Amino acid sequence: MTAIRNILFIMCDQLRRDHLGCYGHPYLRTRNIDALAARGVRFDNAYVSSGVCGPSRMSYYTGRTMTSHGANWNRVPLSIGEITLGEYLRRHGRSLALAGKTHVQVDASGMERLDIERNSAVGLRLSAGSFVELDRYDGHHEPGSESGYPAWLRAQGYESERPWSDYVISVEDDAGNVRSGWQMRNVGWPSRVAEPHSETAYMTDQAIRYIEQQGDEPWALHLSYVKPHWPYVAPRPYHDMYSLDQCLPPVRRTAELDNAHPVTAAYRQHEESINFSRDEVSNTVRPVYQGLIQQIDDHLGRVWEALDKLGRWQDTLIVFTADHGDFLGDHWLGEKEQFYDTVQRVPMIVYDPSPDAHATRGTADARFTSCIDVVPTVLEALGLPAYKERIEGRSLLPLTRNAPLREGGWRDYVVSELDYSFRGARLTLGREPDECRGWMVRDARWKYVHWLGYRPQLFDLEADPNEFVDLGGDRTHEAVRAQMHAKLVDWHASLKQRVTMDDAGVASRTDTHKDWGVFFGEW
Amino acid sequence: MTAIRNILFIMCDQLRRDHLGCYGHPYLRTRNIDALAARGVRFDNAYVSSGVCGPSRMSYYTGRTMTSHGANWNRVPLSIGEITLGEYLRRHGRSLALAGKTHVQVDASGMERLDIERNSAVGLRLSAGSFVELDRYDGHHEPGSESGYPAWLRAQGYESERPWSDYVISVEDDAGNVRSGWQMRNVGWPSRVAEPHSETAYMTDQAIRYIEQQGDEPWALHLSYVKPHWPYVAPRPYHDMYSLDQCLPPVRRTAELDNAHPVTAAYRQHEESINFSRDEVSNTVRPVYQGLIQQIDDHLGRVWEALDKLGRWQDTLIVFTADHGDFLGDHWLGEKEQFYDTVQRVPMIVYDPSPDAHATRGTADARFTSCIDVVPTVLEALGLPAYKERIEGRSLLPLTRNAPLREGGWRDYVVSELDYSFRGARLTLGREPDECRGWMVRDARWKYVHWLGYRPQLFDLEADPNEFVDLGGDRTHEAVRAQMHAKLVDWHASLKQRVTMDDAGVASRTDTHKDWGVFFGEW
Repeated sequence: MTAIRNILFIMCDQLRRDHLGCYGHPYLRTRNIDALAARGVRFDNAYVSSGVCGPSRMSYYTGRTMTSHGANWNRVPLSIGEITLGEYLRRHGRSLALAGKTHVQVDASGMERLDIERNSAVGLRLSAGSFVELDRYDGHHEPGSESGYPAWLRAQGYESERPWSDYVISVEDDAGNVRSGWQMRNVGWPSRVAEPHSETAYMTDQAIRYIEQQGDEPWALHLSYVKPHWPYVAPRPYHDMYSLDQCLPPVRRTAELDNAHPVTAAYRQHEESINFSRDEVSNTVRPVYQGLIQQIDDHLGRVWEALDKLGRWQDTLIVFTADHGDFLGDHWLGEKEQFYDTVQRVPMIVYDPSPDAHATRGTADARFTSCIDVVPTVLEALGLPAYKERIEGRSLLPLTRNAPLREGGWRDYVVSELDYSFRGARLTLGREPDECRGWMVRDARWKYVHWLGYRPQLFDLEADPNEFVDLGGDRTHEAVRAQMHAKLVDWHASLKQRVTMDDAGVASRTDTHKDWGVFFGEW
Repeated sequence: MTAIRNILFIMCDQLRRDHLGCYGHPYLRTRNIDALAARGVRFDNAYVSSGVCGPSRMSYYTGRTMTSHGANWNRVPLSIGEITLGEYLRRHGRSLALAGKTHVQVDASGMERLDIERNSAVGLRLSAGSFVELDRYDGHHEPGSESGYPAWLRAQGYESERPWSDYVISVEDDAGNVRSGWQMRNVGWPSRVAEPHSETAYMTDQAIRYIEQQGDEPWALHLSYVKPHWPYVAPRPYHDMYSLDQCLPPVRRTAELDNAHPVTAAYRQHEESINFSRDEVSNTVRPVYQGLIQQIDDHLGRVWEALDKLGRWQDTLIVFTADHGDFLGDHWLGEKEQFYDTVQRVPMIVYDPSPDAHATRGTADARFTSCIDVVPTVLEALGLPAYKERIEGRSLLPLTRNAPLREGGWRDYVVSELDYSFRGARLTLGREPDECRGWMVRDARWKYVHWLGYRPQLFDLEADPNEFVDLGGDRTHEAVRAQMHAKLVDWHASLKQRVTMDDAGVASRTDTHKDWGVFFGEW
């Protein structure tokens, strides 16, 4: 049996779980992602730790909840005390290459207080989140030093100071006028770059080149697409590959607007929610959003081929997932963040090449998994220590291998969090930055959301799988709410506290005071 | 009005709240501590974050709960990501001098991963917990490089490789035989060092010398006595200053042993509990324990005199407190850790020289305060930023000054924590290191303890102030337990998560995406 030597950790940005064939989309032809699911396990109840890029990704990269890693919104620095997957791998002589987006924001003040120079070896590693950057590209920021993509675009003939703004996310309308893809009204037209020059194509090229260059050397790669995240601009032919009648209709009811939860109601006043609640917007964006997914799927086909050619399917663990979904007008919301499954529940497919995983190939697993499970899965796959004093997720390999579960079975609920202090909703609600937190507890039947300063939300996912009816203020569900509320104590109690000493360290020091010359309690 | 320029933060180790005159002891003549209480505010419901030296002190020094600072037992390193009071002061051109004990354990692996040399400026600061060590002396370890005390003892004529073991904590019995104070049977005899050479006298000398040397320069000093912590050896005349009938009797009832909580029951099997449960032990130790407190009080009189002489009472904030109590046989327990008030509730006196505090001088304040309040109190006293993104305690100055309270009034409960994984109780109970946590919630009436893996404890402090009757399994108190349990959610939700960005940083970035060229949601 060939051991797992390589890791391919693929992330899409803002990809809805229901927008993949293998997760039930009736029209999207995601044959390559579906093929991965057929070879691996499709986790059906995979949740992120927060429905926002930054905190979700920091959880994916640290194996820790948002409460623990503390980077609770985009551009909040990841504390210098946090350890990412790349750093764990480095301890064991491995590295984690990056092609694409991470959203890692360096903890400059943390470095300053420890006299760490930004340009020192450690400073550079921390700035990169301990990824080895083949090409870091966070998308939707004007690319500066972060990526080779703009320079490469210019080399392809896209003459501009800002080729991303002027070409990649710009479109040409039927009259030949250039329009910006920032305005969603324009995304029905194709990108001004040719498809091979688009973000998805470019980053796939970087990934394949790396895999090929590694040859038989072991490797680990994070291929992190910035799509189908906005700006929703697709290159030809993907911009109009899907017709509106091949798109999922918005999931919303007028009744949701009655007695809406104050935080959700405030999010509905955001520009993106107001716009996405109009059919015209949703109808314009959804086909292109599907096209962007189709494009990713097609390019993943190229990655699969490369793996085929190199014989890498037998020794490569593949994780495919997303950092969160996209409302696209569902629940009268745009963007993400709020605690509906549309955003919190993500696709998660794990291909485990081990023969021990043969029995689960092509199956779906309904157990609750989380973005914090990826780091421990990778560490176990490579035979590395579990760093349980710090990592809060659990390896998924016992699930792909139907192995006995330690620690009293598998988790029966998941938690996600939100800090909305950076959003307009905070101003609408007139709250201070430290008063804007919410926690979602999702078990087999219920979804409960605890909010600072507001009544909770409660959804009965059995009776109401689309989460139309908020029972958070309902008198008949008090006992359920109390029960779900109490799970938040269990969850907090499960988080890792003693990060500077592992359990073996504790065990070796238990009841040993006399060994070190301390004889308290003797008569 | 003279502003506060100096800080004197005095800590005793293992000092029970009920062992001071101002807190009601009928015989102990703690006239100097009582005098401080008469000039300041005596906080009557002050609690530590954990009833163990290490975690309690790390909370005193960081202003953060044990869950947040993570150093959850003695000798668990304080994470490199944590910031102590000394570091905050240093940012503002001040320093925090140390005379005595801190229990800070450096995070060697954290330094290693960031390439910080132990002997670099930063490495040395971190090793010292950012105290400027006049004389660091953690006590009950053979003093090595940590202190000038052993060398000084030798200079006073105590010839020995280990003068602490051979003299300070050794006694001579009536026949002139040397006996070790580690064995409590021996502590009725006096220490082999003369009183001026004892730990308490020596450390007071260091403190007074520093205060005098500073002259009119502002200063901040942590005077941290290692007494009345074991070994319970007192120098003459303190070893027999109190008779047994001047001591408090053990607070315990036989009925406590029936259906005892499993964790408490396991603690009762510790050697110190078995011994302290015998009258002979308690009767031998209690008079000496009182003598050690009397000695501290007498030496604090010298400190008060030095402040008098230098005119420092007008510009010095003084905090007097302890890191936890000592069971001394109460509840059939020795040592500390379990959640009885004997250990968790500590003396806390704050002398605020401001004229704004005149109205509260000599008063008692029954509001719940915590060891995490000391750092914010000091910062406010010196006019420094509150670092609210990180510090979880609250300044006590609004209480000493009867000032209006922001943030919805004052807290109405406190929480303390325990990780007993290092103790024999864990082995007795057959648990893994990560299964050994407990959380105490204390409000005006109830004390509730949530334990991993065991039933809770509940005490009705109104009906049962001595905590003899554990209602944790009682059917009639289910609603109370649920209510107290839910407070643990509130408490966890109140902890600081986003430590790398302050609220002002959030406020300046709220709803500003368009300012940085990101136009999502536009039509």
